Amino acid sequence: MGLVVQKYGGSSVADAEGIKRVAKRIVEAKKNGNQVVVVVSAMGDTTDELIDLAEQVSPMPAGREFDMLLTAGERISMALLAMAIKNLGHEAQSFTGSQAGVITDSVHNKARIIDVTPGRIRTALDEGNIAIVAGFQGVSADKKDITTLGRGGSDTTAVALAAALDAEVCEIYTDVDGVFTADPRVVKKAKKIDWISFEDMLELAASGSKVLLHRCVEYARRYNIPIHVRSSFSGLQGTWVSNEPIGDKKVEQAIISGVAHDTSEAKITVVGVPDKPGEAAAIFRTIADAEINIDMVVQNVSAASTGLTDISFTLPKTEGRKAIDALEKNRSGIGFDSLRYDDQIGKISLVGAGMKTNPGVTAGFFEALSDAGVNIELISTSEIRISVVTRADDVPEAVRAVHTAFGLDSDSDEAVVYGGTGR
Amino acid sequence: MGLVVQKYGGSSVADAEGIKRVAKRIVEAKKNGNQVVVVVSAMGDTTDELIDLAEQVSPMPAGREFDMLLTAGERISMALLAMAIKNLGHEAQSFTGSQAGVITDSVHNKARIIDVTPGRIRTALDEGNIAIVAGFQGVSADKKDITTLGRGGSDTTAVALAAALDAEVCEIYTDVDGVFTADPRVVKKAKKIDWISFEDMLELAASGSKVLLHRCVEYARRYNIPIHVRSSFSGLQGTWVSNEPIGDKKVEQAIISGVAHDTSEAKITVVGVPDKPGEAAAIFRTIADAEINIDMVVQNVSAASTGLTDISFTLPKTEGRKAIDALEKNRSGIGFDSLRYDDQIGKISLVGAGMKTNPGVTAGFFEALSDAGVNIELISTSEIRISVVTRADDVPEAVRAVHTAFGLDSDSDEAVVYGGTGR
Repeated sequence: MGLVVQKYGGSSVADAEGIKRVAKRIVEAKKNGNQVVVVVSAMGDTTDELIDLAEQVSPMPAGREFDMLLTAGERISMALLAMAIKNLGHEAQSFTGSQAGVITDSVHNKARIIDVTPGRIRTALDEGNIAIVAGFQGVSADKKDITTLGRGGSDTTAVALAAALDAEVCEIYTDVDGVFTADPRVVKKAKKIDWISFEDMLELAASGSKVLLHRCVEYARRYNIPIHVRSSFSGLQGTWVSNEPIGDKKVEQAIISGVAHDTSEAKITVVGVPDKPGEAAAIFRTIADAEINIDMVVQNVSAASTGLTDISFTLPKTEGRKAIDALEKNRSGIGFDSLRYDDQIGKISLVGAGMKTNPGVTAGFFEALSDAGVNIELISTSEIRISVVTRADDVPEAVRAVHTAFGLDSDSDEAVVYGGTGR
Repeated sequence: MGLVVQKYGGSSVADAEGIKRVAKRIVEAKKNGNQVVVVVSAMGDTTDELIDLAEQVSPMPAGREFDMLLTAGERISMALLAMAIKNLGHEAQSFTGSQAGVITDSVHNKARIIDVTPGRIRTALDEGNIAIVAGFQGVSADKKDITTLGRGGSDTTAVALAAALDAEVCEIYTDVDGVFTADPRVVKKAKKIDWISFEDMLELAASGSKVLLHRCVEYARRYNIPIHVRSSFSGLQGTWVSNEPIGDKKVEQAIISGVAHDTSEAKITVVGVPDKPGEAAAIFRTIADAEINIDMVVQNVSAASTGLTDISFTLPKTEGRKAIDALEKNRSGIGFDSLRYDDQIGKISLVGAGMKTNPGVTAGFFEALSDAGVNIELISTSEIRISVVTRADDVPEAVRAVHTAFGLDSDSDEAVVYGGTGR
């Protein structure tokens, strides 16, 4: 008998009907002879509604209480799901993150899982139950306070439980059919990927693909837990993410896995920086001290006449204000002329482990962009990824051009089945 | 420095505005030099909405999961309340029933508190925090499952914490000004009671007064915790419930505390029962085995010619169907002719410890009803209470007549301040 961990997102359990539909699917997995652990998110917009309430009572909700508030959402969905399963004649028990043994550090609102002790889950399974676990939440090791895991936390809960329980697979149910070679809302001919390696998936996630978050894939890779991303609205096979293709699937690693894009970032250019050692360090120490994560960094060639250079970097738009303030505050310490802020940028990334051994990939990428008349502002590369920054307006056309140029377009003219926002 | 436990019901924290208003009041109590523990119910209609959701996914929601679901409501309100207090510049921490040490038995949906171990609350208070505790919930001693305490559970949580923490007073904030000599919706001239003994309050609660539930008063009496029932919408003194009047208040025990009524019961008459030993036992064993609580019981004088008698009893209307089914199923075992079910009854009760030593009370009660043209169907008495069953339609007139006859009417013509449903 195998052990399967399934995770259902908020859009799959948005209302009572959704919960009943998901309950049937869970019972099917149980009937197929599996032990089943289900991780569930809050229903539909519940979390947003709770955040809205919090903002009404306090402009700066406190971490501990904010976590206590938000975790109510999963408590509701998991209890309802357990009831719906029982109503189908199968035994189910629900568990909070704390009860499920999801132990975290004490960083409220974005805690990290430091241990999983699923004793109660194991017992529930051994007694024949389907175990329903609240996603997104845990309990802090030191203070025994309720914590939340931040964005994509339910996926991480599912993978962490799958690892702790030595599950055969972690199935991530969502409202899309799987991971695509590009965002199907932008590229009509995007294809569903049948299998993708952890490494390529990590790069896609880091480059703007929103189906799986980086953190969850990282966790799965570390413990070698195969992920199966699939739709809760259909019975179709989705995308397998693993070290090697599973079972008898002879899937060859594609040269290129997909094209990702991201328009959530902004660019800051620090103008007129003295071109001497320690300058870049001063800038990025300032940004790091403000707890801002940056993405790409480019330093221009210094103009010989002035001895000054410009340093550009990209960061989430939401952090833009904070970064500008931090740099201005430390202007004399760093020594720069001015700051330029640009939030009309987009990033296009080409991802694929095959590009390591295919020298023409970079050239082909730039040619495709050039042919489409897209101007490149920044470039950054890793062994299995090339990313460029362009004008935000150019992103859709650039993605389509690159997708076609690398032979990723689907042969079929059928519209891709695509249900929603790809959360 | 005193320790005060305050409890706020759902109508007091129905929305963000309510939560902010309550937060201010709590901070006032803290500023007055008290250590403050606050027990809070779910916001407004949250619990009803959750019950509605449960019924949509399962016609018979299971106990354990149903409790898990319902407790989400208090989790939301307590976290928001703690945030609102912090926003006023005071420290607050929220605690689930489990975190607050509310230990219960394992009877889901109506668990009983068996112990309170408020170590975390004590620590939070000692560190200068206001402690916010989820009402209505606890954790089972054996299985560590989340439980709920049933109707009025938040009041019981408050009193239990007050007892465990040796509080000076347990303040129950609600949407009415206190306990009245009668329901002010029925009797315009009902007066707020300044002080009432535990015993009289117990009888009023058992007789239909809904401001405080029997169970909560019973708990307070056992541990001698004074209760102050008051409005969260005004600064007025409410009703003190205690063994003796508090402080310098020279309040003399009234002969009559008040008139309560109850139209939530039905009457079942078992017709044609052999008048021999064991018959009543057979009937009430049947009812008890069906886990139905009954209220009044009356056996008519047997008709000599037939040797048969009738036995009537009252019970909550909601249990009517179950009781009829149980009796019909055991008809041959008990041996009766037929059952009569009547849900158009009402009960009027006169409560006061003074009636023990005032022999005219019973007579005066019946005279008042007679003068008002109200027919009496059943009578039941205790040392400090007389109750009668009448037609439901007669209840308002009967209550007013008795209230006037015993001199309880307010002298003032001002409308009583009365905010809502008296939950």
